Amino acid sequence: MATTKRDVDLSRRRLLAASGAGAAAGLAGWSPAGLAQAATAKPLPPFAAFKDANRMIVHSASGIETKREAFGTSGITDTDILFVRNNLGAPDASIVANPDAWQVEFDGVAKPGKLSVAELKGMGLASVATVLQCSGNGRGFFGHKASGSQWKVGAAGNTLWSGVPVKAVVAALGGLRPDIRYMTSTGGETIPAGVDPKTVVVERSVPWTAMEEAILAWELNGEPIPLAHGGPLRLIVPGYYGVNNIKYVKRVAFTPTETAANIQSSGYRVRPIGQKGAPAQPSMWEMNLKSFVTHPAGNAPLRAGPTQVYGVAFTGGSPVSAVEVSIDGGKTWRAARLIGPDMGRHAWRNFVLPVSLAAGSYEITSRAIALDGEVQPELRVENERAYAHNGWRDHAVKVTVS
Amino acid sequence: MATTKRDVDLSRRRLLAASGAGAAAGLAGWSPAGLAQAATAKPLPPFAAFKDANRMIVHSASGIETKREAFGTSGITDTDILFVRNNLGAPDASIVANPDAWQVEFDGVAKPGKLSVAELKGMGLASVATVLQCSGNGRGFFGHKASGSQWKVGAAGNTLWSGVPVKAVVAALGGLRPDIRYMTSTGGETIPAGVDPKTVVVERSVPWTAMEEAILAWELNGEPIPLAHGGPLRLIVPGYYGVNNIKYVKRVAFTPTETAANIQSSGYRVRPIGQKGAPAQPSMWEMNLKSFVTHPAGNAPLRAGPTQVYGVAFTGGSPVSAVEVSIDGGKTWRAARLIGPDMGRHAWRNFVLPVSLAAGSYEITSRAIALDGEVQPELRVENERAYAHNGWRDHAVKVTVS
Repeated sequence: MATTKRDVDLSRRRLLAASGAGAAAGLAGWSPAGLAQAATAKPLPPFAAFKDANRMIVHSASGIETKREAFGTSGITDTDILFVRNNLGAPDASIVANPDAWQVEFDGVAKPGKLSVAELKGMGLASVATVLQCSGNGRGFFGHKASGSQWKVGAAGNTLWSGVPVKAVVAALGGLRPDIRYMTSTGGETIPAGVDPKTVVVERSVPWTAMEEAILAWELNGEPIPLAHGGPLRLIVPGYYGVNNIKYVKRVAFTPTETAANIQSSGYRVRPIGQKGAPAQPSMWEMNLKSFVTHPAGNAPLRAGPTQVYGVAFTGGSPVSAVEVSIDGGKTWRAARLIGPDMGRHAWRNFVLPVSLAAGSYEITSRAIALDGEVQPELRVENERAYAHNGWRDHAVKVTVS
Repeated sequence: MATTKRDVDLSRRRLLAASGAGAAAGLAGWSPAGLAQAATAKPLPPFAAFKDANRMIVHSASGIETKREAFGTSGITDTDILFVRNNLGAPDASIVANPDAWQVEFDGVAKPGKLSVAELKGMGLASVATVLQCSGNGRGFFGHKASGSQWKVGAAGNTLWSGVPVKAVVAALGGLRPDIRYMTSTGGETIPAGVDPKTVVVERSVPWTAMEEAILAWELNGEPIPLAHGGPLRLIVPGYYGVNNIKYVKRVAFTPTETAANIQSSGYRVRPIGQKGAPAQPSMWEMNLKSFVTHPAGNAPLRAGPTQVYGVAFTGGSPVSAVEVSIDGGKTWRAARLIGPDMGRHAWRNFVLPVSLAAGSYEITSRAIALDGEVQPELRVENERAYAHNGWRDHAVKVTVS
């Protein structure tokens, strides 16, 4: 079983982290003591110990980012380098030992009740490619020190998920009850003792129409979903920000109103800097139009001559139809070429532009264009929690060519 | 670097193999002594030690198959479970330590010469999904004990590759010389001492028109190609049997005739049982139309009730347009549904058919139908080397439902 393998992986990856980032830090594992010893990089936490430490940036035990230069050009982001972001600690690893036994409660349907993953596997099968992206991806480019992981570009990845279509389950349960407006799903994280569940529970409402494309997934990139990514079962809402893709999902309810859980009512709301979150503010649902360059990554000087500028473009809205690249900080733009398989409108697409660079300094960036004519904007929208950054200027890389 | 990681992986995977297949065998590594101790499964050879031992069948140190039940439904075959087949031992692992330094010689072009991977990376970029399949996949179903690994279904996988289009390199080298009919490529394996190179060298000719879609790839599934799969550089000829996808490629020559190397002139030729290979016989080039069921896998009894029958369909020819499934050994057929992203005509596609099975015995199989009307045949074509098996009858799984 992949899950078992990933768990066993722990000691090996620590060893790798050690060789990559200083032996003392790696072998000490995840502890304040270990951190204190690590002059360079933080070690991977145990539940994500299977990640490739050399290609990740560890912000915290619950915030791990893919390095810009680690994204390849093959379309899919390998699970070994996919970012991790948890709002609460993961449940015990024992839940992925027997995925088929995991149970989910369904409500807001004609015949509410519980179903096991084994039962869900008999009810339908779909497979979808979608970008998974943290709402705060790009927070590290904001200037107002918003709290949370200071992600640059790597709290995103393109992933393949397989599972049962939510609408197949709803049909099997007799259809939706009247007056439904939201699909409200609850994660299986353990609520810390002494805490009001409402303040921390990972429970999100999305428009019920998102049910059309949503799946309850047990497979990520061809393997059982590891604990770090929400196994044994995760709700996947293609095109929606990461937080809506509920890990260890234990309840899916169709509801007339949004949940009152803090993570929905005040969390993940876009509002001016300094304001508190509130239900009237926009919620982090569909992802906006975005692209970024992954090569050059700005981490090393280039030699003069021909090079391929490439990166990724994606959206939760009108499909990406074109990408433009600038090597002069946005003064001029040239059309890039989209390459590789088109995996559907919620997947990302690699783009490439061949350039020949003479010695000098360059500011290289990209902007995506959607089928409906929308163009990825230049600037971020300032907001308290530093969400939804898709401005191409901040995402530019500075490159020295000699 | 992924390559370094995979090399370091060795000791960890041995440990895993040990827990999966008996500690003595695993820890002893790849040796006759280790084999003798392993009552159950053979251990993974060092160069493929990063594979997930529990989901592989090790036929030999150079023949490792994916178990039928290990294929997921997400489209891509993870590198951790992708089959391995080598005609000669792999070169020393040091060649993947610095992939950019690897050099390839080009001939049959206006300006012949050598290029490094670093130079190739500046010349173009493409990404393609293709099935990689050993010519002998399905050999284990033949009755005449053909020599070679007795593969069932798992010497195949769907993979993403990135690299430079061969035609971009040819253009940069001034175009092809006159009278070219073949693209002839040579692998970088070390020829054993005292052996006539012609008898063992991995050198294959394919029609020069295959250049149109071929790439020189440095990336597999989003990561640098590991040694076991032909890193640092592999020729990928989409839709062609595995042997044509030259590993550690060190020479690409455009030639008026096919190479005289045995692997081309007499090897990989389809001929009647008992005959020797010869140049006039069909060569193993484009893959034929094929599908097989991966669930149920026939490895465990099923409980009565609803289940999803699923599998994969692919071809090197006219694209797959439909798949039919039979649960009664081919007496009756029902149309399956294609699911997941369509990654292009050389990729495989998952199909699914929901069925409800009462207690009893079933023989479950599938047949693919191509856009040009071709239907996957019932029977294998008997041939000396047991190549190109795409008969649906042998690929059926027998399932007991109770």
